[in-house]
Amino acid sequence: MKYQDILDACSLSAADTTGGTLCVTTPVDGSEIAQVPTHSVADAEAAIATGVQAFNAWRKVPAPRRGELVRLLGEELRREKENLGRLVSLECGKIYQEGLGEVQEMIDICDFAVGLSRQLYGLTIASERPGHSMRETWHPIGVCGIITAFNFPAAPWCWNAALALVCGDPVIAKPSEKTPLTQLAIQKICERAMATFGEDAPEGLIQTLIGERDLGEVLTASRDVALISATGSVPMGKAVAADMSKRLGKTILELGGNNAMIVAPSADLEMAVRAIVFSAVGTAGQRCTSLRRLIVHADIYDQLIPRLIKVYAGLSIGSPLADGTLVGPLIDAGALTAMEQALEQAKAEGGTVYGGGRALTDQYPDAAYVAPAIVEMPEQSAIVHTETFAPILYVVKYTDLDAAIAMQNAVPQGLSSCIFSTDLRETEHFLSAQGSDCGIANVNIGPSGAEIGGAFGGEKETGGGRESGSDAWRAYMRRQTSTVNYSRALPLAQGISFEI
Amino acid sequence: MKYQDILDACSLSAADTTGGTLCVTTPVDGSEIAQVPTHSVADAEAAIATGVQAFNAWRKVPAPRRGELVRLLGEELRREKENLGRLVSLECGKIYQEGLGEVQEMIDICDFAVGLSRQLYGLTIASERPGHSMRETWHPIGVCGIITAFNFPAAPWCWNAALALVCGDPVIAKPSEKTPLTQLAIQKICERAMATFGEDAPEGLIQTLIGERDLGEVLTASRDVALISATGSVPMGKAVAADMSKRLGKTILELGGNNAMIVAPSADLEMAVRAIVFSAVGTAGQRCTSLRRLIVHADIYDQLIPRLIKVYAGLSIGSPLADGTLVGPLIDAGALTAMEQALEQAKAEGGTVYGGGRALTDQYPDAAYVAPAIVEMPEQSAIVHTETFAPILYVVKYTDLDAAIAMQNAVPQGLSSCIFSTDLRETEHFLSAQGSDCGIANVNIGPSGAEIGGAFGGEKETGGGRESGSDAWRAYMRRQTSTVNYSRALPLAQGISFEI
Amino acid sequence: MKYQDILDACSLSAADTTGGTLCVTTPVDGSEIAQVPTHSVADAEAAIATGVQAFNAWRKVPAPRRGELVRLLGEELRREKENLGRLVSLECGKIYQEGLGEVQEMIDICDFAVGLSRQLYGLTIASERPGHSMRETWHPIGVCGIITAFNFPAAPWCWNAALALVCGDPVIAKPSEKTPLTQLAIQKICERAMATFGEDAPEGLIQTLIGERDLGEVLTASRDVALISATGSVPMGKAVAADMSKRLGKTILELGGNNAMIVAPSADLEMAVRAIVFSAVGTAGQRCTSLRRLIVHADIYDQLIPRLIKVYAGLSIGSPLADGTLVGPLIDAGALTAMEQALEQAKAEGGTVYGGGRALTDQYPDAAYVAPAIVEMPEQSAIVHTETFAPILYVVKYTDLDAAIAMQNAVPQGLSSCIFSTDLRETEHFLSAQGSDCGIANVNIGPSGAEIGGAFGGEKETGGGRESGSDAWRAYMRRQTSTVNYSRALPLAQGISFEI
Amino acid sequence: MKYQDILDACSLSAADTTGGTLCVTTPVDGSEIAQVPTHSVADAEAAIATGVQAFNAWRKVPAPRRGELVRLLGEELRREKENLGRLVSLECGKIYQEGLGEVQEMIDICDFAVGLSRQLYGLTIASERPGHSMRETWHPIGVCGIITAFNFPAAPWCWNAALALVCGDPVIAKPSEKTPLTQLAIQKICERAMATFGEDAPEGLIQTLIGERDLGEVLTASRDVALISATGSVPMGKAVAADMSKRLGKTILELGGNNAMIVAPSADLEMAVRAIVFSAVGTAGQRCTSLRRLIVHADIYDQLIPRLIKVYAGLSIGSPLADGTLVGPLIDAGALTAMEQALEQAKAEGGTVYGGGRALTDQYPDAAYVAPAIVEMPEQSAIVHTETFAPILYVVKYTDLDAAIAMQNAVPQGLSSCIFSTDLRETEHFLSAQGSDCGIANVNIGPSGAEIGGAFGGEKETGGGRESGSDAWRAYMRRQTSTVNYSRALPLAQGISFEI
Repeated sequence: MKYQDILDACSLSAADTTGGTLCVTTPVDGSEIAQVPTHSVADAEAAIATGVQAFNAWRKVPAPRRGELVRLLGEELRREKENLGRLVSLECGKIYQEGLGEVQEMIDICDFAVGLSRQLYGLTIASERPGHSMRETWHPIGVCGIITAFNFPAAPWCWNAALALVCGDPVIAKPSEKTPLTQLAIQKICERAMATFGEDAPEGLIQTLIGERDLGEVLTASRDVALISATGSVPMGKAVAADMSKRLGKTILELGGNNAMIVAPSADLEMAVRAIVFSAVGTAGQRCTSLRRLIVHADIYDQLIPRLIKVYAGLSIGSPLADGTLVGPLIDAGALTAMEQALEQAKAEGGTVYGGGRALTDQYPDAAYVAPAIVEMPEQSAIVHTETFAPILYVVKYTDLDAAIAMQNAVPQGLSSCIFSTDLRETEHFLSAQGSDCGIANVNIGPSGAEIGGAFGGEKETGGGRESGSDAWRAYMRRQTSTVNYSRALPLAQGISFEI
Repeated sequence: MKYQDILDACSLSAADTTGGTLCVTTPVDGSEIAQVPTHSVADAEAAIATGVQAFNAWRKVPAPRRGELVRLLGEELRREKENLGRLVSLECGKIYQEGLGEVQEMIDICDFAVGLSRQLYGLTIASERPGHSMRETWHPIGVCGIITAFNFPAAPWCWNAALALVCGDPVIAKPSEKTPLTQLAIQKICERAMATFGEDAPEGLIQTLIGERDLGEVLTASRDVALISATGSVPMGKAVAADMSKRLGKTILELGGNNAMIVAPSADLEMAVRAIVFSAVGTAGQRCTSLRRLIVHADIYDQLIPRLIKVYAGLSIGSPLADGTLVGPLIDAGALTAMEQALEQAKAEGGTVYGGGRALTDQYPDAAYVAPAIVEMPEQSAIVHTETFAPILYVVKYTDLDAAIAMQNAVPQGLSSCIFSTDLRETEHFLSAQGSDCGIANVNIGPSGAEIGGAFGGEKETGGGRESGSDAWRAYMRRQTSTVNYSRALPLAQGISFEI
Repeated sequence: MKYQDILDACSLSAADTTGGTLCVTTPVDGSEIAQVPTHSVADAEAAIATGVQAFNAWRKVPAPRRGELVRLLGEELRREKENLGRLVSLECGKIYQEGLGEVQEMIDICDFAVGLSRQLYGLTIASERPGHSMRETWHPIGVCGIITAFNFPAAPWCWNAALALVCGDPVIAKPSEKTPLTQLAIQKICERAMATFGEDAPEGLIQTLIGERDLGEVLTASRDVALISATGSVPMGKAVAADMSKRLGKTILELGGNNAMIVAPSADLEMAVRAIVFSAVGTAGQRCTSLRRLIVHADIYDQLIPRLIKVYAGLSIGSPLADGTLVGPLIDAGALTAMEQALEQAKAEGGTVYGGGRALTDQYPDAAYVAPAIVEMPEQSAIVHTETFAPILYVVKYTDLDAAIAMQNAVPQGLSSCIFSTDLRETEHFLSAQGSDCGIANVNIGPSGAEIGGAFGGEKETGGGRESGSDAWRAYMRRQTSTVNYSRALPLAQGISFEI
Repeated sequence: MKYQDILDACSLSAADTTGGTLCVTTPVDGSEIAQVPTHSVADAEAAIATGVQAFNAWRKVPAPRRGELVRLLGEELRREKENLGRLVSLECGKIYQEGLGEVQEMIDICDFAVGLSRQLYGLTIASERPGHSMRETWHPIGVCGIITAFNFPAAPWCWNAALALVCGDPVIAKPSEKTPLTQLAIQKICERAMATFGEDAPEGLIQTLIGERDLGEVLTASRDVALISATGSVPMGKAVAADMSKRLGKTILELGGNNAMIVAPSADLEMAVRAIVFSAVGTAGQRCTSLRRLIVHADIYDQLIPRLIKVYAGLSIGSPLADGTLVGPLIDAGALTAMEQALEQAKAEGGTVYGGGRALTDQYPDAAYVAPAIVEMPEQSAIVHTETFAPILYVVKYTDLDAAIAMQNAVPQGLSSCIFSTDLRETEHFLSAQGSDCGIANVNIGPSGAEIGGAFGGEKETGGGRESGSDAWRAYMRRQTSTVNYSRALPLAQGISFEI
């Protein structure tokens, strides 16, 4: 399929993809696929103003009716799954299967949000005063800014938007400048859903801003943006947090991860191998939940590591659009350099590197294909504590589970973690208060945070935000605690007496 | 009762109250009642280190057992209610009844926390994969710093500490430098409870740091303090938020309020008068939930305002320790100056001031007693948008409810709000998504956030934190989303296929 | 549209509607529209056996995947809304608008159930023992029998089935022998959804049994039917409960209602009139939530009642399939007789009857059209305490709200209730522990239990069951409380010591 | 300690324990310890009438205030723990440690209920109609009858009463005629708590009826008893259910259990032995959660069973009041006969019996001491499917886990179950939808349902009720679903159009 056909299938027009100043290259071969027009700071301010208008209308629309819009969005996404999945693959370089997976997550979260639209549960609470009733209710908060990253150009927007829309909030997307096309395609899908939905959807309910960091800064600076949900690096997240601290705005931060797997002696090693490879080389190691550290019990180390090295050597590297490819390219040359530097540092810290070299340079001289690397480390040294957005898997050995958990917890990030073990005592300990300190802790699967029914997000420098399932929807609403006195008396709480 | 007797009754020894560099004066008459030794920055760092040790032990203690410590704390507080209530009154100047009320809140939150100690509910969640189970669990987070303010020297510490302790977290208190004695007395009560509880309570579980802002900064700077819960002014909160953004630490911010009441034509005016006076002059207008703005319907304005002015004129101002006093002193001369300046500005903006002058200057020349002020304003001008920590009640008129709500929402803070009306359509509208934008919205009671069973806190510049009841306990824990694969297969989520 | 066309549009074949022993007549004109083949007791037993097989397979299918079947069912229902709505109208005689409303409820509950399929939340619970974790999980229970009534031949099946299916339970429907066609049409819709869904849906997952009461008795007698959800009269419900008590099986009982509205002086009378008329004459007074009693404050009685009598006189009575009809026929001659007897008794007890006569006898001699009746009663006498399934509205007067509430609560049933008042004190009192004793208590709307997001059902002789929204899904699952000891010690609870 | 001293310590007076017609013998030695006056049917009816009066007052008392009474009750129980524990031991024959354990559960549930008293959470729910709000609230239901059994004369009353009282319901206890004294002692404790509490506690709030089954029948027959919570045998439960089906009253049934443990090859056998012995011989096998069936994997059978037989042989049998006793007496001669008959039948079905003979006949000729029995069975035959209330442990062998689970699930009761295994795959499978069908499913502990924070109760013939923790409190309240229309329009749900 030609690249232009992929764009066309997503209804991207010449106006969307030509004549602009933002050059989009595909990591597949490094060629330019679009010159996207960008928004100015003034455009961003206008978008916020329109968003505020939309908020005033949208919050009046009953939640189940808002859910109907999200249901229609899900229907559109079902129809466009292959088209959008292919665009994701083209633009960010993940394999087509994973592109489809992103769209499926969008569909799933829409279904989930539709169900929520008849819940959004608050509480009624027993009051200590006669003739009083107490309630806790959740209300829409206002315009939500959604800042997303190149490696997941589709699903995280939808995790946020599907919930925000059901919760009564307009959304303004600011995608990565590396992957604007996917967001533009999503915006078109949304517009079709809104057209079907009809006039209850106000103008400005769903907007997209294309451009650089300065647009994000307009969002973080404005008191009219009630919430910033930002996915990206830790430094980006700290910058957002600092900006928001000036106006005490709300944030959902989904930042880096330096995710480990502990492999215990009782593990099913064949399952572990599959999980390790998918987690470490999937999306070319550019997921926030990519597996970066492998903490292996000494007793099985010599069984597992050689097997892994062998599997790594046989992985099919190639175009993410081609059938059978498991490892696509890195996003760009910068990512390649970072990987090379990390491997150098690892060697300097005593590591033994397997794989890790550049690949397919003949076929794709302008792209950044690499062979995924396994690095045996003598200990969990500085580079192992560092998140490098590339397919590098550091391996260390352990003998005591608590020491392994301490290693797992020693990094500044706290996104995801896992253990392979069939020993209940080990697995429950890993999941306990004394176990993993991450937001996600899995057993006998990799560190993915996958199903949309659970809350996704992490602790420590990962930023503390939660998205997707469970009660993540609450972040898009404000909590109101109300006491209604329907009696003819005015008792004070705590039995205080105050007579005028 | 002599001041020294009040200190003695709270087991404060000479070592606690003499020889230090922190001079504590009582607002009752401005006299010095203690010279409290302070902690150094090094002391604060040591306290954090001890706290971390305590955390490692305490998180292993089962939650219902942790609840037992809090139950014993509640029992101690029951015994000391009068003593501690009197000290609160002496040190911060609120009337004795309100001092007792603070201690009662401490007792209530202890009871509530004991119940929570067998809950701390997470979720089990339906998984999309066969042979997988999904769970969301809540775990202790670590050392909690509790920064409190002079106007509530007792209850907020306990809202935080009772929950934090049950949740598995050690606490380090940093009280206002204006009111260290109450916190010292609480610390002693805690130590008695811990002694009764026995050795499961590790050293350093409950600590107090006495001193200035630099101690707070040690807490905000340290990665070993997982959570800062800070009560105080908006500028203080912004400073804490900025510090915490550097390390992406967790915060609970309980900052200022500029709380309004709307009085509708159908209101029970006698009840409204009582509520207004208690809310506006209680604690000499120095509560975060003090009533500061009165938005009165034109049809009843002339019934209500003269009645209020008359009641104000008859309020008994005097020593907070004396029976019958309704209005005690401001905390200090600075507060007095701020009040005088605010009234000047109000006049300049067209306001008519009733009351507001200094009081009891003969009897208490070194104290800051004032007559509470009512100020009729032509509109909600700049000074009305400003929180002045003093008993000033600005009054404005309205004719349309939506306009009144817009006025109510126009200030930067979002703590508390209320309406007096018996018209269901008005009251439910006020509580709806289009109504009050505050964290607390009451009907036919003042803007107090009183009962501990509900979550306390506010939106916008009030900081967004929630304390006390409902699920406020979650802020003291970390959320863990876990998927356990107990099958012999490794299906990927979203139906992704990835074969090695 | 010809009757046969309505049947054809719902894919009912000659095999479904001819040659059987169950004669179905339409209340529209009393003509026979089908002779439906019935199932034998042996068929019913076989159906249960197949259901058990289906259960063993279906409970292994992950809940979100089960939700996908319900989503597809919802899609089919969207497509068939008009067709099925018309069949409902034809078969049970409610107006076409209400027939559509039933199908819309089916669609809504499907959407809601899809969302639930990623929730089905249990709890994780703090344990008092170190190294122990405690969980509460919800599991499928088994085959569910769904017994429905003629007046709602469609929606209640779906309230039950959508939840049961998502919860992992096969369903066996036993519709009223008066309205089998609607259920047969639904069965066909389900089969299409299952075909689209694919092989994960086992044979026997969704079944229908056509016949008389003996088939229901097979269901209640069998230990292999885990739950009976039965909608119908109080005597039917008591019979089911007695049968189930022999084997301690689970039930959801949705029985009769004798629903009242209190109209207070502050009510918006125009709104009240609309609500009263729709609630009292809709479905010709044959809803379980029909308004049967009107308790009117003396001060507005003379305003309201004459206005109502006038509106009643102008109601368009006619074929439920015709545009503009508001009042269709009673289900059959038996219903007519019951209505006539009730009106006789009402007169004997001092009532004054307006309307209530038979209508359209020329046009439809074999049908049971009536003019809805208003009956002014001197007090709430015996007949007013009786539920007559017909459009009779008894009116009584009150002066004191608590007395009105006492009247409202005096009947044996406890389904629904409402108040028209704009006085907050009255409305909240009505909703309080001292107010209505019904499962549904509304303010400023009629006694309908309408939205599917809330739980539907009633207290006292209404049977106590809950269906549809909130956590009604739990009735279709079993609760499991689990404690996992992952330590190497065996502490007993409550500190018991027992050394061997 | 003399028996009379035990009675005296519990404040039982001569009026309580002499001159009545109900002879109470202690199972310790079979001697008569009291002749308790009984209540008549007329007394029971009067008690219900007083209870209704109490309900009308108590439901008005705010729930947190009701919680204060329960807190005071907990304080009284703390004081009386040893006294009451000893009476329990004397009257029902369980060892003193277990008697203390019962009282500790009472204390724990009181603490838990106090916490609940500020929760009793309902929901606020998103409505599909503009200007409407939807709520689900929980209200008191009325008088609760609590029927308890001889084997737990104390704790189950308190599980029910603590929750019922907090929920707003008066309670009437009907203890077993074998153990009235414990309930009389509890009644006295309650009266002290109520006296401390003051006048908010109405007369008749907590009542006790002493007598035979006819008193229970007064409770089940009366419409004024909203809920019957009954603990006892399956036949008793079916009788209660049949009675209640006549008036569609609410029940909580806690009936028999036939609880199994599966011991897998990976089990920690030393822990298993301790758990088995405590579970099977504790309370002389007369707990509803007693371990009755042991399903042991063939690979470890020969390790485990001889070890068990040896431990059994060494168990100290003796007076439950004596230090060091592990096995006290059966309740009476009837229980002894039932045990002997069961062992005969087991032999007839191919079983090999170890132990099981009568013990201490010289020392206590009038008591029913037995040596606990282990019975190796060739298969799970008829007697193994039968619950015999005595210390008989049937042992069967398994090789396939699913077959073991099928055996575990094959009995009609569904109370409790457990597995000893350290293999995560086995343990999670056991806890899954395809695992145990019991209300309680434990891992690496016995089948006790112990901690009060979880819900206690079982499936199938165990009756389906839940008591104690989680949301068991809801059974003591009625659910109210309310929609409030605060708009000036009257939209119908499901978009129905109905114009008059």
